[in-house]
Amino acid sequence: MFVAKINVTLKESVLDPQGQTVLRTLHDQGKNTVTDLRVGKYIEMKIDASSQSVAEALAKEICESVLVNQVIEAYRLVVEKL
Amino acid sequence: MFVAKINVTLKESVLDPQGQTVLRTLHDQGKNTVTDLRVGKYIEMKIDASSQSVAEALAKEICESVLVNQVIEAYRLVVEKL
Repeated sequence: MFVAKINVTLKESVLDPQGQTVLRTLHDQGKNTVTDLRVGKYIEMKIDASSQSVAEALAKEICESVLVNQVIEAYRLVVEKL
Repeated sequence: MFVAKINVTLKESVLDPQGQTVLRTLHDQGKNTVTDLRVGKYIEMKIDASSQSVAEALAKEICESVLVNQVIEAYRLVVEKL
């Protein structure tokens, strides 16, 4: 059994209204040393595969076909043995 | 300058309808080796602090007061120097 951990972030050039709202809240609270904040998704997926490379290939395919919109998002994928 | 990377996940006992919907989609596509999938949040925050420990303390306070609902969510925080 493997676990795939996927961090999905908006690309730098894409506006992030949710992050801007949280950042404004922090500034309203006086936390002005926080200079930037971006909100993305985190996905954990358990995969029953025979090897690390099979699990990685499946996870990559799922990221690119289902989980991530590569026009506006980037992702980082890590697959670990459970 | 430091960057705080925060993964927020629903606790194991909390239902995750978004994750279940994605999992059902994968099963409909025949990807039955994916046995579980949970969706959480990923937040990246830039902090202008004098030291790692100051940045970590501020990031922890922000997680617990603003970003994370500790009744239903857990988080992992990593602070790195930029």
